[in-house]
Amino acid sequence: MPQYKARVYVTLKPSILDPQGRTVERALSHLEHGNVSGVRVGKYIELSLSGEPAEVETQLRDITQNVLSNPVMEDARWELSEA
Amino acid sequence: MPQYKARVYVTLKPSILDPQGRTVERALSHLEHGNVSGVRVGKYIELSLSGEPAEVETQLRDITQNVLSNPVMEDARWELSEA
Repeated sequence: MPQYKARVYVTLKPSILDPQGRTVERALSHLEHGNVSGVRVGKYIELSLSGEPAEVETQLRDITQNVLSNPVMEDARWELSEA
Repeated sequence: MPQYKARVYVTLKPSILDPQGRTVERALSHLEHGNVSGVRVGKYIELSLSGEPAEVETQLRDITQNVLSNPVMEDARWELSEA
């Protein structure tokens, strides 16, 4: 069965406050990186899937939207490549 | 001053156990996604920087290695693009 590698990126929606990102930004400005702005912290998930291409794609969409992210607050995108 | 957008990906080194990834993997196998393996959960950080290209690149390397990741346990890579 073909093997695929998926990379999923989950970010907070732009309208949602990101306290973790704000904390990193404040820390950086105290470390003389005052030119850094707009820090947003999200998740990056790697996984392997085996199966037929069309099924794997449908499955990855389902996993991303229903398990790995919360569609109310987060945006998610993914990349699928052959392993 | 030119504006840049940076994307930083932080992942646990392959030799480090990832309990969060294992938990996701187990949850997926209970949800009839038993063909999923090797789940690893990392961080994805977006930030904006202003400055001259060479300086921004040096600065981003410093930020990634000393603030956003722990080089003992984590690997980090980054992409820099003009905003």
